[in-house]
Parts: sequence; structure tokens; C-alpha cells
Amino acid sequence: MQVTRSQISLFLCLLSCASVIGARYTPDWTSLDSRPLPGWYDEVKFGIFVHWGVFSVPAFGSEWFWWNWKGAHDFKYILYMVKNYPPGFSYADFAPDFHAQFFDPDAWAEIFEASGAKYVVLTSKHHEGFTNWESPTSWNWNSVDNGPHRDLVGDLGNAVRKRSLHYGLYHSLYEWFNPLYLSDKQSGFKTQEYVARKAMPELYDLVNRYKPDLIWSDGDWEAPDTYWNSTEFLAWLYNDSPVKDIVVVNDRWGNGCYCKHGGYYNCADKFSPGELPKHKWEKCQSVDTISWGYRRNMKLSELMDLPALIKDLVYTVALGGNYLLNVGPTADGVIAPVFEERLRGIGAWLQINGEAIYATSSWRVQAENATVPVWYTSKNSTVYAIFTSSPNQNTFELSAPKTSDNTVVTLLGNPKPLKWAPLHSSGLILLLPDLPFSPAQAWTLKLEGVA
Amino acid sequence: MQVTRSQISLFLCLLSCASVIGARYTPDWTSLDSRPLPGWYDEVKFGIFVHWGVFSVPAFGSEWFWWNWKGAHDFKYILYMVKNYPPGFSYADFAPDFHAQFFDPDAWAEIFEASGAKYVVLTSKHHEGFTNWESPTSWNWNSVDNGPHRDLVGDLGNAVRKRSLHYGLYHSLYEWFNPLYLSDKQSGFKTQEYVARKAMPELYDLVNRYKPDLIWSDGDWEAPDTYWNSTEFLAWLYNDSPVKDIVVVNDRWGNGCYCKHGGYYNCADKFSPGELPKHKWEKCQSVDTISWGYRRNMKLSELMDLPALIKDLVYTVALGGNYLLNVGPTADGVIAPVFEERLRGIGAWLQINGEAIYATSSWRVQAENATVPVWYTSKNSTVYAIFTSSPNQNTFELSAPKTSDNTVVTLLGNPKPLKWAPLHSSGLILLLPDLPFSPAQAWTLKLEGVA
Amino acid sequence: MQVTRSQISLFLCLLSCASVIGARYTPDWTSLDSRPLPGWYDEVKFGIFVHWGVFSVPAFGSEWFWWNWKGAHDFKYILYMVKNYPPGFSYADFAPDFHAQFFDPDAWAEIFEASGAKYVVLTSKHHEGFTNWESPTSWNWNSVDNGPHRDLVGDLGNAVRKRSLHYGLYHSLYEWFNPLYLSDKQSGFKTQEYVARKAMPELYDLVNRYKPDLIWSDGDWEAPDTYWNSTEFLAWLYNDSPVKDIVVVNDRWGNGCYCKHGGYYNCADKFSPGELPKHKWEKCQSVDTISWGYRRNMKLSELMDLPALIKDLVYTVALGGNYLLNVGPTADGVIAPVFEERLRGIGAWLQINGEAIYATSSWRVQAENATVPVWYTSKNSTVYAIFTSSPNQNTFELSAPKTSDNTVVTLLGNPKPLKWAPLHSSGLILLLPDLPFSPAQAWTLKLEGVA
Amino acid sequence: MQVTRSQISLFLCLLSCASVIGARYTPDWTSLDSRPLPGWYDEVKFGIFVHWGVFSVPAFGSEWFWWNWKGAHDFKYILYMVKNYPPGFSYADFAPDFHAQFFDPDAWAEIFEASGAKYVVLTSKHHEGFTNWESPTSWNWNSVDNGPHRDLVGDLGNAVRKRSLHYGLYHSLYEWFNPLYLSDKQSGFKTQEYVARKAMPELYDLVNRYKPDLIWSDGDWEAPDTYWNSTEFLAWLYNDSPVKDIVVVNDRWGNGCYCKHGGYYNCADKFSPGELPKHKWEKCQSVDTISWGYRRNMKLSELMDLPALIKDLVYTVALGGNYLLNVGPTADGVIAPVFEERLRGIGAWLQINGEAIYATSSWRVQAENATVPVWYTSKNSTVYAIFTSSPNQNTFELSAPKTSDNTVVTLLGNPKPLKWAPLHSSGLILLLPDLPFSPAQAWTLKLEGVA
Repeated sequence: MQVTRSQISLFLCLLSCASVIGARYTPDWTSLDSRPLPGWYDEVKFGIFVHWGVFSVPAFGSEWFWWNWKGAHDFKYILYMVKNYPPGFSYADFAPDFHAQFFDPDAWAEIFEASGAKYVVLTSKHHEGFTNWESPTSWNWNSVDNGPHRDLVGDLGNAVRKRSLHYGLYHSLYEWFNPLYLSDKQSGFKTQEYVARKAMPELYDLVNRYKPDLIWSDGDWEAPDTYWNSTEFLAWLYNDSPVKDIVVVNDRWGNGCYCKHGGYYNCADKFSPGELPKHKWEKCQSVDTISWGYRRNMKLSELMDLPALIKDLVYTVALGGNYLLNVGPTADGVIAPVFEERLRGIGAWLQINGEAIYATSSWRVQAENATVPVWYTSKNSTVYAIFTSSPNQNTFELSAPKTSDNTVVTLLGNPKPLKWAPLHSSGLILLLPDLPFSPAQAWTLKLEGVA
Repeated sequence: MQVTRSQISLFLCLLSCASVIGARYTPDWTSLDSRPLPGWYDEVKFGIFVHWGVFSVPAFGSEWFWWNWKGAHDFKYILYMVKNYPPGFSYADFAPDFHAQFFDPDAWAEIFEASGAKYVVLTSKHHEGFTNWESPTSWNWNSVDNGPHRDLVGDLGNAVRKRSLHYGLYHSLYEWFNPLYLSDKQSGFKTQEYVARKAMPELYDLVNRYKPDLIWSDGDWEAPDTYWNSTEFLAWLYNDSPVKDIVVVNDRWGNGCYCKHGGYYNCADKFSPGELPKHKWEKCQSVDTISWGYRRNMKLSELMDLPALIKDLVYTVALGGNYLLNVGPTADGVIAPVFEERLRGIGAWLQINGEAIYATSSWRVQAENATVPVWYTSKNSTVYAIFTSSPNQNTFELSAPKTSDNTVVTLLGNPKPLKWAPLHSSGLILLLPDLPFSPAQAWTLKLEGVA
Repeated sequence: MQVTRSQISLFLCLLSCASVIGARYTPDWTSLDSRPLPGWYDEVKFGIFVHWGVFSVPAFGSEWFWWNWKGAHDFKYILYMVKNYPPGFSYADFAPDFHAQFFDPDAWAEIFEASGAKYVVLTSKHHEGFTNWESPTSWNWNSVDNGPHRDLVGDLGNAVRKRSLHYGLYHSLYEWFNPLYLSDKQSGFKTQEYVARKAMPELYDLVNRYKPDLIWSDGDWEAPDTYWNSTEFLAWLYNDSPVKDIVVVNDRWGNGCYCKHGGYYNCADKFSPGELPKHKWEKCQSVDTISWGYRRNMKLSELMDLPALIKDLVYTVALGGNYLLNVGPTADGVIAPVFEERLRGIGAWLQINGEAIYATSSWRVQAENATVPVWYTSKNSTVYAIFTSSPNQNTFELSAPKTSDNTVVTLLGNPKPLKWAPLHSSGLILLLPDLPFSPAQAWTLKLEGVA
Repeated sequence: MQVTRSQISLFLCLLSCASVIGARYTPDWTSLDSRPLPGWYDEVKFGIFVHWGVFSVPAFGSEWFWWNWKGAHDFKYILYMVKNYPPGFSYADFAPDFHAQFFDPDAWAEIFEASGAKYVVLTSKHHEGFTNWESPTSWNWNSVDNGPHRDLVGDLGNAVRKRSLHYGLYHSLYEWFNPLYLSDKQSGFKTQEYVARKAMPELYDLVNRYKPDLIWSDGDWEAPDTYWNSTEFLAWLYNDSPVKDIVVVNDRWGNGCYCKHGGYYNCADKFSPGELPKHKWEKCQSVDTISWGYRRNMKLSELMDLPALIKDLVYTVALGGNYLLNVGPTADGVIAPVFEERLRGIGAWLQINGEAIYATSSWRVQAENATVPVWYTSKNSTVYAIFTSSPNQNTFELSAPKTSDNTVVTLLGNPKPLKWAPLHSSGLILLLPDLPFSPAQAWTLKLEGVA
């Protein structure tokens, strides 16, 4: 039988139809980057980041303890070990003391929900390679065989989802001291033993087991995405995985990748853009400015206080980003009260001001230096002006909003419309009421009928 | 040679002179209670209490861990041990984990000073009997032979005194499980082996070694003062000890003693009198409402927040008391940041309002329910009215003060005199300025020229 | 182009030539079994087996501790854990206590040499999967990352070879609880993930790093050799490995393999044939009859004494076998003195009687029940008759040897020829001297000129 | 009234009667030394010494670990600690690892009985001051509060007595690092705080609780008996204690005391007199020649073997002494098999030769160099000649015994009388049978009817 031209045409047609109906991503950035970000992510704005692992046992310096000690040979870490441990004590020897005996996932989830966060991202595996679930390719170096003897990833996920929070998983591609990785590295990343035997099996396993809404990839920077097989993974994730329709990823998928490819952009840690980015982004920040993991000897002066956190959140959302705020639990499984206090403080502020945060968009103008610094967000025709210090006077000027006859201004938390008057060129002046007590030191003006 | 009548008279005269010049206290309450309280104590008003010991290792439930577990057989403690320790694990087995490796006495003292406290009281020995110094009668059950391998009492004392804070020592007379004590107890306290071999040698040793400004006695209630030899000790302390002129003691020196005999009165823990007591007193309180010792799993809701602490301090001082606020350090030797935050918060409030606290006296009236609740203190002719919630209005009425033409009213932290007017019978009404932001939610009105 | 018949013939010819000149083994039993056993092995007769691993930490029950506890749920093991460890304690938690702090490989090698052994076989990895060298595919579950923090395989190898002993490595193919293995097993051994990622990489790594003279394979029985890829490994070992000319292997390479294929045969543990086997074999035996690994609470009655060990050695050699005697070192790294005593006792006996053991062959007759039981060995024309209990009389009859005029009989350790006379049909009667004191209770008659 | 001669006589008579009927010892050596040694002690001849304590945990160097480390600053011990423990680790930190989890007192007692010993002496408290019973004056430094959580003294005592062995307690008067002792020492032993509060209360407590048959005093040498109050204690022990009729003590009761005063004499450790002492004595010896406490890294060459032990026992008994042989159990509570083997070996020898040991007396002649060295003991008219090496010939000459017509000579273990003939001046020559196999390498000739 002969294949006719028309049959060929039909086939090509069907093929192109297929690609319209059931588009499949191909493992290259052009295709992968074309995927629209699932909608939930931009709406939620605020999430909690949780760094937990064997590093929570020494809980000294930072979660990079192992690297600082044995990789960078940082004198501070060497001295700490020399003074407190017997010679020959190894990082693996910390694992049995990762007890997590007080770990109550529901209590954690309650705190996270009370903070007003809408998603939670847990380190399923940090650069130390210890997996917080029973990974078959990380035998005797995971939270079920060792230390907690418990599926931390699963247990937290269940609790978080019971409260309708989204659940994301942090995953480090590289592992500082994994001999398979070190051997690949020595080959100039020509071999991929580590990727084939550890990194990818675990990433697929995570997705299939826990169906995360978000994958927070990290530890990619020493090798190109072609080493990591990132695009293959993402193509599978977007085409065939159980979370293909909902999953969101970040941008750390290989050297040179971040701020360029992937889902939303994290760029560098704690990245703070100077102006409105073109691409959806997320700022990750830690309450403890020195570490993402718990430190037993942290001092108050090293922690962000509530006003600073609110400022940071407001700035991020005004510039179109999401804010992912980190707390490091103790090896015992506790969110320290000082962190709990910060989180509940944010939640209390969002109770009143959340309307200006959740599901908003960045506005035409993101900020202005009015009477005091002001950040703008918007939702449909409503504009929110958030100021993060008290003006210490009764009048307040805003220059960016263009008022109309229908303009109504209120202070969130206060039902009474405020008196205002237009200013010469543009903007308005308004009469503030006594500001309600706000430990966060931030208040929101809601402007309706402005442009 | 014959002794003449006149010689006898001379002798008796000299004797009585001696008793006038160098009065010696006798070991009975009438004499001991007649000693005036050294002046520094009433002036300082605010101190820090520190509960630290082997109980800081389990750091679970409370510092009564041992008793609750092995004495009261509290199921919660038994379960905790069963779930987390091997069978047969004893309380003494906790001691090696009392590492105190981050203990930096200067850092503690800096925090204490920043809190505005003027004295610090450390548990030299709690009911567990473990001494935080190298007591010769507590061999292998003290902080030098065991755990920290360090003189905690001495090291903290040096740091505290470098900052000109007074240094006091808590000391428990009884020890729950000391076999010498248990044997005396079984005898109906007819034998005093424990007192002779442990309690008194250690109390004298403490005084001679560390020269404390204050002795906070505790654990007295199971036996009368005659068992403890308390009056003998106090007579020595007042007559002959190296701290005889400066030392202050509390009132726990034997069953039935408290609120009746001794130096100042603590009465029961957290005792809160309803009206002005006749005798100098002290309220001890713990930031963690559930425990005096550190608890690894404390929750924010179990801690007092800053406004509650300020309220408590103000109430106490208005009623003539001192306020001794407790924090429990970790076994690692750290004041948890959540406690540090409370302490620095009090210090910040005292920076502005300390004038109304330090070296004040209770006033004619201690409190009134004005616009909002108000507490009074006084210093010479100045009266202070402290209110611990915002009145949420501009005018403020006080009914107790009797104004005169010379009356001047200011808000502490604000130099400008406030406008005021006398009220009908007595009292005044005044115009409040915008209240400055106060995380403590308390402000002070200073009234000069009132009666 | 056409291939001619003659070209084919030439090719076949070349092929067969090749196989003659540089014979290469093919990965099938027919080919592999055809390899002659390297000569050293049959000559040495006596070796030491060393079971050392994480199981040496609990040192309770046997080296199958993990399996008995968590696989077989043996009540004795469960009870031991319940009584001595906190709930949730896992096998991996034992690893930090594998200190090996007294491990002195030279001291071990001295003892092994003094025992008269000529080869030493160490467990490089037992069924627990913990590798006693830094295996890249056993990260954080090996003796360098964990516990001893030392290359045990390498360090013992160096010491053993300095004394010219042969060095062999025990290697378990399976690992009880390795999730990769369990997954393969669940598939009915259709997948080979575990073999590809763990078993074979480690076996090749062992050979390339340590160049063992002997590989003592074990843990093969649950799966066929086709699962293990045993024949591929052996073909490489015999053809291309750095030890291809000298290496000896045993017979545990897959279910149904033992006693049939491989190098020498172990058959079952402690296998004792009733008659002379056709194939070179080895009997492995442990001084502690209950365990191959150290047991902290072993009792004397559970240990073989010197006479029993000598009897077993003599029996084995008489039947053409090698004797591999096991001792389990402590987790501290010590060969217990009771084992040392056994080993030195064997060495002392071999000093005198080694001539009848080393480099001998089995004789025409292996044993007879003479005056007392007698075992025969031979070397060239000399025959040795070893009796393992004292006859308690001066005359001694042997029925198997056929004497001649040149027959000379001596007792090893005694230069003087013994008086003897032929017996009727066959055999001889001889006059024994006073037997020298022998803690081993065994003596050797050397018969020259017999048939 | 005049006292008459007869009255005086009567008084003296009554006095002497009193001393006969209810003689009381006075606290001076003249009186105490006059007490006859209770009869059982001389009859039993052979006992087991057990050194067990916290020193069994490091089990390194010797039971003087603490002193060598912290007192003598022996580099070997310092290095061991530096290499294996964190800085600041103290001796007290070892106590939690004194687990004694395998301690089976009945199993120990069975071994001791099997050794042929008739008494057992346990260290109730060594120089470290840790008490192996729940001493009220050693709170948290004893085997019930710490480590084993068990009454070791009581538990072993019960087991030992069930087998009708006598039970003795070792007790160290001094404690290296007890601060009370150190303070007394600094005073030149003018104060006696330590004696009053620790040493004597514990010694009385031991006697009253456990009713020991023997007190093995030690640690006396730094101070005179007047410091220790030894004579007061002994007077009470002999007059009023519950063991006054049966108790035996040694001679270490104060500097200069040993070999002079007390019960039997130990003189120095391992003291070996050159000739027959006038006073009953005991030789204490340890199987491990280097240590009395267990050493984890002991080597076979450092241990006495069975023949050496038997030689030592025989020598001691021939010279009228008792032999107290020491084994150090492990911290786990096990008598190491190598010690068990020695003890059972002695027991096996005593099964045959015990007749020449138990309840014997030293003979007219204690030893002679006959064919081989020979030691004599006697019982009534029977004389025993024990030779501790094989003569390697059939005839045997003894020169000391004077034969008669009734003389009968046998070899113990062999019923048949031996042939003998008198020698010229004195002594005899006899015909030995084949010597039965003896791992102890010692045999006994029994001579009846000799002088």
C-alpha cells in the first residue's frame, strides 16, 4: 500500500492539532520556559521556608556547618569541634542526636497558618545529602533509618495540607561530600554517576510520593543543566508527573540558569530587585539573618524583628514578588518561640492588612517617598498604599494616585472613610485618624476610585 | 584580790555600752527581725532570677522534673522518659549533658543590665541538690566535677559585678532525694545529719566564697527553723559574715516562717498582695508561666508578653514590692532570644519610665480606675501615675492627686508640660499628647506639686 | 565481497590459537570452573577468618543481630533492645560506637602469624551492608565516614602482608535491609538495581584497591547467579583483574551454586564431609561456636578449646580441606585474650607438627580407628599419622601403612627413631616414648618408607 | 573500811572470769591484736578478689586510672583521653556507662565456686570513692543512683552465700579526690571531717547491711590509724557488730600498720615472704599482672597462665598463707572467658589436689629442691609434696620426709600405692606412674606414715 500525499498532510495536521490540544513540553528551555506559571502561586504571596536536617544538631554557625568545617576549614568551626567533641568525630556522628522527639506537625502547621502564609517549603534534602524521607538511594543516611526514625517530609506534608496550605519541597541537586558527586566533578562533569544514582532517582521519588505543589531546586551552580538532566526532569514534571498541572518550580537548574530559566525566579539568595522585575519572582529571607538552620546560640540582635519583616514582605509584594520566610526548627522538633512570635505577628498584621497583599498585583507605581515611605499594590481598580513607619502627624500626602470624584480612602481596620483633598498636579492629602497600635508598625490606606 | 562593787558596776556599764555600739543579733526571730533591711534593696526594685541546673538538661515540664518523675510519679514525666530514654536511666545520668558550652557570663550580664535590672539571683543549688559551684560536700554532684566543669556561681558573679549589679544566690535548704535528708525526715526531723553535713556547710561556704548581697532561701517548708538551724545561721550572717552590713535575705527559713520572719518577704511563689503590705516584699515571677527552668518545648502562648510583664512590674512597685523576673537558660548556656527580647523590652521601657520605678516609694494611693487603670508611685514630692493601656482618647482624668497652683504634669519621654485643669472635688483632667509608640503599652505621667 | 570457506577456516584457526596462547575465560560455569586453582591455596592449609563490623557494637547474640532483631523478630533481641536502649533506637545508631580505638593491625598480624595461619580473611562488608573501607557507593555507611574513621580493610591488609600472609576479603552479595536490594527482590529479581549500583561496584572496587588473594563470597542464596552477574565478575577477575593469576575464590555465587561451581568449595557453613571430597574445599569454623562476631557475654563453655580446634584442623587437612578459623574482634579493636590464647596454642602445636599439615596431601587412607583415632596426611613418600588423644599405653598399632625394610618411624618433636614391628596382615606396632606435654593433646607419627 | 587481801584476790578473780566469759576488746592494738583469728579463714586457703567500679568503664591502664590521669598526670592516660574524649570530660562522666547490663551474680558465683575458692572479696568502694551500694553518704556517686542502678554489693553477696562461700568486702579508707579528705590532708590530718562524714559511716553501714565475713581494708597509708579511728572501729567490730564472732580483717588500718597489726597480714600487694611467716597472712595476686581492674586491651602475655597460678597458690599455702586471686569484670558485668578459663582450671586441679590444700598446715619443711622443686603441706600425720613441673623421669627423690615401716605413698588421683625405698640418711626414692595429663602441670604425692 502506498502512502499518498494527502495522507501525509492529514498526519501532519493531526500532529499539529495534538500539539495544540495536549501540548507536550520538550526538554529544552525554549519549550519549558513557555509554560505558564500555575495561577495559585502568584496569589498566595507569602510562604514559610523550613530548613531542617542533621545540621540542626550542631546548630552552630549555619546549616553549612559540614562544609564550613570540612570543606572551607573555617577556623571557627574547627575550634568548636576541637573544644566540644572527641578527635575523629565525624558529621555522620551527629545524626543519632537528630531526635525530633517534640516534632508535632500539626502544631507547626497551626503556627504556619496563623502567620498568614499560604505555602510551606521544607528542605527534603539539603547539601549534606541527608534525606528527610526514607529514600531508597540514601540508605542509612535519612530520617527514617537514622535520628528521628520518622518520615519528616510526609508527616509535615499531611499536616500542612489539612490546613489547605500548599506544600513545596526544597531539594539540593548537589551534595558537598557525596563521593559519587565528587567523582563526577573530578571528571569535569563528563560522567553522571551521581545524577543517575542519587539526584534524579530522589527527585522523581519525591514527586511521585509526595506530589509537591512546588519544587525549590538548589545546589545547581557547580555544573550545567546538561549534567543535571534538568530539562528532562522538567519535561517529565510538566508532561507526565502527577502534579503536572499544579506544580511550580524555581530557577536553579544548572550553572547560569537562575534569573533566566525555569518557573519563577529566585535569582540569588535574598535577591532584592531595585525595580519591578519582568518575571514572577520570590524573595527568600530568614528570620535569623545569619543562618537558615537553627543556631543554638543565636542572639536577638541577629534576628529580624517584626517591623523589618513586614517592611520586607511589603516591599517584595509591591515589586510583584512572593515572600518566602525561613525558620529553622530545633533538632528536638520545635519552632523556637522567638520565631513563633514573629510568625504570629505577621499573621496578626495580615488579619487587617492581608487585603493589600493576597492576590494583589503590582501597581503602576511601586513606591514613593511621601510623608513617609509608601509601597503600592493593587487589585482590580483598588489601590493600596502601605506605609511602614508612623508619620507622626495627622496629615498624609500621596503624589502618585490620580483622584476622581469617586475616590474613597480608608485605613484598613477602620471602617470610617478618611477626609482627603486633591493636590495641585496629582496626588492627594488626607487626614489620618489616630493610628491603631501596630507592633508591626505598618498601616494600609485603601484607595478606591483612583487611577 | 577582791572585786569591789564599783568594779562590777563598771563592767556592767561597759557591757551595755558594747551592746549599744556593736549590737549583736541573737539567734531568735525577735532579734533577727529587728535588723533594718540594708537600704540598697528597696531602691533597686527590679532583679533577674536565673534557674539553671541539671533540670535544664531534660528541660521538660519544669525544674521539678526529678520530683514529678520519681517523687510524684506524674504520668507525663514517666511517659517522656519511657519514650526517650533506656530503662534504668537515672536523673544523675543527665548531668554529663549539662554542657554549658556557650555560657558567656559577660553576655548574660550585658542582657541583664540592658533589662534595667539592678540585681541578679542565681540558683546556686536547687532542690535536686546539684551545686553550681565546687562544693566539697557535694562531691561528684556539682558543676565542676560534672557537666559544665566550671564554677557557674563564681563566673556569673564576676560578670554581674563588673556591671555594678548586685549579686544574690538562691539556695534550697532541702533536697528531695538526698538520703541524709530523707533519713532526718523519717526521724521526724529529730536528727540533723543532713543539716550538719550538707545544708549548713554549703550555705556558709557560699557566703564565704561568693559574698552574696542577697540570699534567696527556699525549700524550707517541710521542717521547722529549729531543724534547719536558720536562726544560728542568720545571727552569724548578720554579726560576723563578710557581708554582714549589706546582705539581704528573704523569709523562707522554716515551716511557718514565710510572710512572718526574715528579711523581706516573698510569701508564696508569685504572691500578689491585694493591698499595700506593711513589710518590704518581693514578687518573683517567671516569663515562662509554666516553669522556672528552661523548657525545650515551650510555646509562645505559655510565655508572658512584654505588656503583661510591665503591668506586673508596675503593680508590684506601686505596692512597695521588688520584682524578681525569672528566665531559665538552656543547658548549652544560652538565654533564649525570646527571653532576651522580653528583658531588653523592659529595659527600653525603663529608659523612659525608670524615674517612676527606681528608688520610689508607694504613694498615699496605690491605684485608681481612672480613664484606664493607673498605678501610683512617688519620690519626695513627685507623684508618678503609670497607665498600662492606651486610653484611646485625648483627655485623661485622675481623681486621687490634689493639685495646687504649682502643679506641673508631664508625660515621661516628652519634655512639654501638659495642659490640665482641676476637677470638682479632687483630681485633675489633662490633655494627652499623641502617645509615643510603646511596645510595652505603658506610659507615665509625672505630677509635681501635687499632694 | 564474498567470504570464502578458507577465510572462515583461517578465522576459526586464529580463534583457537588465541585461546591456546592467551586463554580467556568466558562468563559461564563451564569455562570458569575449568580454571586451575592457584597453587598457594592448597599448600597453606590454615587461615584466620575475621568478622568485624557494626554488629561488633551490640556484640550480642551473633553478627546476625540486625536480622534477628528486625527481620526475624527474635524475642531475645527485641528484649535486649527494650531493656537497654531508648525506643526508636535503630541499628544505624550503633555505628558511632564502633570506635576501634585500640585497633593495632600489626598486633593482630603478629597474633595471626603466631597461630601458624598462612592467610587472613576479613569481612570487608557483611550482610549489614556497612563497608569496612571508604566505598563511594556506601556513603555514610562505612568505616571511614562513620565509627572508626579508618580504612580497616586497607590497614589490616598492609599489616598482614608485611608478615607474608595471604590476604583475603569476605564480601556479602546481599544486604538484608538495603532498599535497592529489597526492591529487586520484590520484583522476583527481574530488576538489578542493587547489583548495578552497590554489589558489583563494590566488588570491583575491592579488587582494584586491595588486590586480594582470595575472595570469600557470601550472601548469594536468595537469588540466582544471573541476578548477581557473578560469572561476568569472575570472568573479569580471571582475565583482566590485577589479581588474575593469584586470586582464589570460593563457591557462593548464586542460589544452587555452592558445592558445585566457583573456586574451592565451602558448601554450607562449617560443612564437614564424611569422606574425601573430589574438589578442593575449606571448612570455616568459629572459636565461639555460637557467633562469628564478638559477643560481650560469651561464656567459656560456648568456646572451642584447643584440643577441639586441633582435632578439627587435623580432620579437615586429612580430608584435603583448608581450615579457616574465625575470631571476632571487639568494637574497640581488640582480639580477646581467650581467642589469642587459642591461636597461639595452635601455633605452638604447629611449630612441632606443622610438617604434617602444611603442603601435605590427603593419603590413600584418611583415618583409622587404631589404638586411638588416627588421621593421615602425606607428603611425597612420607606418611603422617596424627592422633588426637593420648593412648595411655606404651604400644601403638596402625593397620593401614604397609611397612618395608626401610620403614622409619619417629614422633615429631623427638629425633629418636621408634622401635616398631610389622603386624600380621598389614600395619605395624610401635613403642611410644613418654609423650611430651601437649596442651593440644595431639601428636604426630612420621612414617618414612611405608606405602 | 579496809580492803583485805582476800577481797583483792576475789576482785582479780572476777576480773579474769569476766575476761573469760564476756571479754571486750579495747581500742588499742595490744587488745585488738590479741583476738584469735576465726578458724574458718585459715582453712579455706583460696579466695577470689573482684575489682569492679567506674574504672571498669575506661578499662584502660589500671584501676588507678583516675589517679594516673589527674593525680600523677601520666602522659599515657592524658593522651588516651585527648585522643578519645572531648575536652573537659571528667572522670564522673564515665559513670553513666557503667551499665552492668549482663551482670548475673549467680553466674559469677558458679564460676567462683567452680574455681575451688571458698571466699569472695568484692571492692565495695575503691579509691575513686564510688560505692557499689547505695551509700547515703555517697549520694549520686554510687551504683544505685548512677550507672548500674543496682545494689552490686548486695546482689553478689546473696549469690555467693547461696553457694556457701564466705563473702568479704574490700573497702578503701582514703579517696584520692574527695574534697573532705583533701582538706583533712592539708591540715596534716588534724581535722577528721572526711573520717566522720564518709569513711566511718560507710564502713559501719557496710558491716550492718551486708554482715561481711571479711573486711579487706586498704588505702590507709597516707595517715596514721589515729586519723582513721581504726581501733575504735575494730573494737566495735569485735565487741558489738553483728559479725563479731566470724569476721576476719586484714592489716591495713593506718600508716605503719601493715605487717604489724590487725587480723591476718597482707603486708604489701602481692607480698611474697621468703620463709614461713609467724603470723597468718594472705597473698593477693591478679590474673592480669598489670591491673586489678579490667583492661579492654589486655594482651595474653600480660596474664598469668594456669601453671603459674597453681605454682603461686601452692607456694602460698605451703608457707601458711591464703591465696586471694583477682579478676576484674567488665563494665558490662561479665567475667571475661580468659579469666573464667583460669578459674575453672584451678578448680579442676583442686578437684584432685585440693586435699593437699584445704585445711592443711605448713609442714616442718616448706620446700625442697628434689628431682624438681617440691612444696610441702600437712594435715595431721599426713604430708603432701606438690611438684609443679614434670620430672621427666620415673624415679623421684624426696629428702625431707623420714619414712617408717608404715609409710604409704600415693599420687593424688591415682589409688595405687607407689613403690618406694628409703634413702641413706633421710628421705626416700619412689617410682612414679605415668603422670596424668594436667594442664596445670602440678601433681601431689601424699605421704602417710612419715615424720
